[in-house]
Amino acid sequence: MTDTRETGSDFLPKFDSAGLVTAVVTDRASGELLMVAHMDAAAIEVTRATGEATFFSRSRGRLWRKGETSGNILRVVEMRVDCDQDALWLIVDPAGPACHTGARSCFYRGVALGVTPAEGALSPVV
Amino acid sequence: MTDTRETGSDFLPKFDSAGLVTAVVTDRASGELLMVAHMDAAAIEVTRATGEATFFSRSRGRLWRKGETSGNILRVVEMRVDCDQDALWLIVDPAGPACHTGARSCFYRGVALGVTPAEGALSPVV
Repeated sequence: MTDTRETGSDFLPKFDSAGLVTAVVTDRASGELLMVAHMDAAAIEVTRATGEATFFSRSRGRLWRKGETSGNILRVVEMRVDCDQDALWLIVDPAGPACHTGARSCFYRGVALGVTPAEGALSPVV
Repeated sequence: MTDTRETGSDFLPKFDSAGLVTAVVTDRASGELLMVAHMDAAAIEVTRATGEATFFSRSRGRLWRKGETSGNILRVVEMRVDCDQDALWLIVDPAGPACHTGARSCFYRGVALGVTPAEGALSPVV
């Protein structure tokens, strides 16, 4: 089932009960998934206006300009929205490691496949 | 702040209050972001065991093997987990369009940047 939100050209973010949408960040150069975060309406507006990825920090309960303390800002090259407009895709040029652990990407561990029942340890991938 | 969940090698998904984690799906060949969905513990186990992406459909309230009706399954080549283990990255070989609209990716519209205040229409990108 499709509707105006899916087929139209109006930007109508579908916020969840906490007023947030999911933001997926990938690296323009490598294509790698760097991080997943959340945005409220203000974070979206600031990001679009400044071109620097700004999220809503659920732990801190406030707007969070990525890199505001570390300096590792994410310059947004392109932004897309998905079919039902509850997720955003930010294609970025990162100024440094995206993860607070110092890793280039937050996704630095692999989960084993082909196991039944699902078990087994994570393995480093970055 | 880091903890065992971030630095360790144990797979300890951090489910939200609805028992879900975010699942980000990218295309192995193109690197393109295809879709964002959610997984509960059962969806993770089925996906790991079968290698076919299976999510929890919030609208239907049940497990949802992607492609179960359309045939457009997503063969999972690699799975990763992020630092705080509340998001999964699935790198897949898609059997067909990932979006229920028939688009290759759910992210078929761009959001304009550099506008203040944030406004403007979406533009097709796929």
